[in-house]
Amino acid sequence: MPFAATVLTLYPEMFPGPLGVSLAGKALGEGTWSLDTVQIRDFATDKHRSVDDTPAGGGAGMVLKPDVLAAAVDSVADGRPILALTPRGRPLSQERVRELAAGEGVILLCGRFEGFDERIFEARDIEPVSIGDYVLSGGELGAMVILDACVRLLPGVMGAASSGEEESFEAGLLEYPHYTRPVTWEGRTIPEVLRSGDHAKIAAWRHAKAVEDTRLRRPDLIERHGGASQAPPSGAQREDRASKK
Amino acid sequence: MPFAATVLTLYPEMFPGPLGVSLAGKALGEGTWSLDTVQIRDFATDKHRSVDDTPAGGGAGMVLKPDVLAAAVDSVADGRPILALTPRGRPLSQERVRELAAGEGVILLCGRFEGFDERIFEARDIEPVSIGDYVLSGGELGAMVILDACVRLLPGVMGAASSGEEESFEAGLLEYPHYTRPVTWEGRTIPEVLRSGDHAKIAAWRHAKAVEDTRLRRPDLIERHGGASQAPPSGAQREDRASKK
Repeated sequence: MPFAATVLTLYPEMFPGPLGVSLAGKALGEGTWSLDTVQIRDFATDKHRSVDDTPAGGGAGMVLKPDVLAAAVDSVADGRPILALTPRGRPLSQERVRELAAGEGVILLCGRFEGFDERIFEARDIEPVSIGDYVLSGGELGAMVILDACVRLLPGVMGAASSGEEESFEAGLLEYPHYTRPVTWEGRTIPEVLRSGDHAKIAAWRHAKAVEDTRLRRPDLIERHGGASQAPPSGAQREDRASKK
Repeated sequence: MPFAATVLTLYPEMFPGPLGVSLAGKALGEGTWSLDTVQIRDFATDKHRSVDDTPAGGGAGMVLKPDVLAAAVDSVADGRPILALTPRGRPLSQERVRELAAGEGVILLCGRFEGFDERIFEARDIEPVSIGDYVLSGGELGAMVILDACVRLLPGVMGAASSGEEESFEAGLLEYPHYTRPVTWEGRTIPEVLRSGDHAKIAAWRHAKAVEDTRLRRPDLIERHGGASQAPPSGAQREDRASKK
């Protein structure tokens, strides 16, 4: 069964868009995942096909109507997690991405304007999610971000060698820095240890750099993981992982 | 002068994509901002047009070569901020978005594969930026997120009424919840205060809800802003702002 994505949006023409290209596009073409869009406006009930109305209590912008949203959501709900993109939501994490990617798929509800009538979150089992601490013009880019993050983790998409085990946010650390040829470029030389061929030393250096860079750039990640990720790995274990590649 | 965006990417065909639709697309059509793409591969120097090579020290994936990246960046550098999308970067914030939107534009460098040779960040004035704590297949969606967040703040794009002053992440708070008609839906009624017509009471209720929801969902935002945002606004000031709309 492919990973089934359904996006509820006022702009279905945005999809697949960037998801139709490169890694995600190839996987879409191969049937590793599927993508459907639903036009929220099709669930409007008045003659003007209204999906939004002015905010209760006044203020700028328009708010998506709960009855129209619910009808759109109900038309596709089938047990898959339903996520709504909103800056009021829980921040998306790589851990949540892994959970979603391990499931049957996801339903993504995209807002526009000032957002959703809050009652939709009380009346339906919808998880508000935010892709970051900034405001976008709508949820569509957020939906694409969630789907891209999930799709690359689906079996076969990245290939066996790139399981993503050592990348950023695993174990609460940023990934270590990368280098490639030329060995010396503009007077800057690749760190010697990386040219040593000593897998245990390389693994230890990379872990130390990951910890150092995380402490420097993202101390919040280390705090959130209780500082456990600061412990160095056993050399043998890391050597084993490195030599598998 | 329009806000000038230049995206360095291996997939220029992804652009404008979603940015060509709706709010950002309309603003692009009206010349409020401009969008150029640069194919990084055009700066490869060998006969195979290689842009990447294996990671020094071993491991999965491929790393973007520093010489090719530098040549691509140098071809467009003109004083605009240069941001590279990477999970190792500083998290994008609404504050940084506002700074960028107030400037002349932005140059965005999109990685693919395992990422950039680290030396590019030492050799050029490039700001590593992350749109969130998850891993994507490339930087293109992140570039679109940054551009969408900036473009909606450009003068005239949202209209005078929606300055974004009261939205999420301003003053370190999530935005208050929204409601619209019908007044009663599935047995759930819009909070009475929002139907009172009392602007001062409505502003106070909204601020209290913003603080309450932020405490509940995102205590990290309040901590990061030193708890200052917990203080209620003066009723007069909020009333004044509400009545302007």
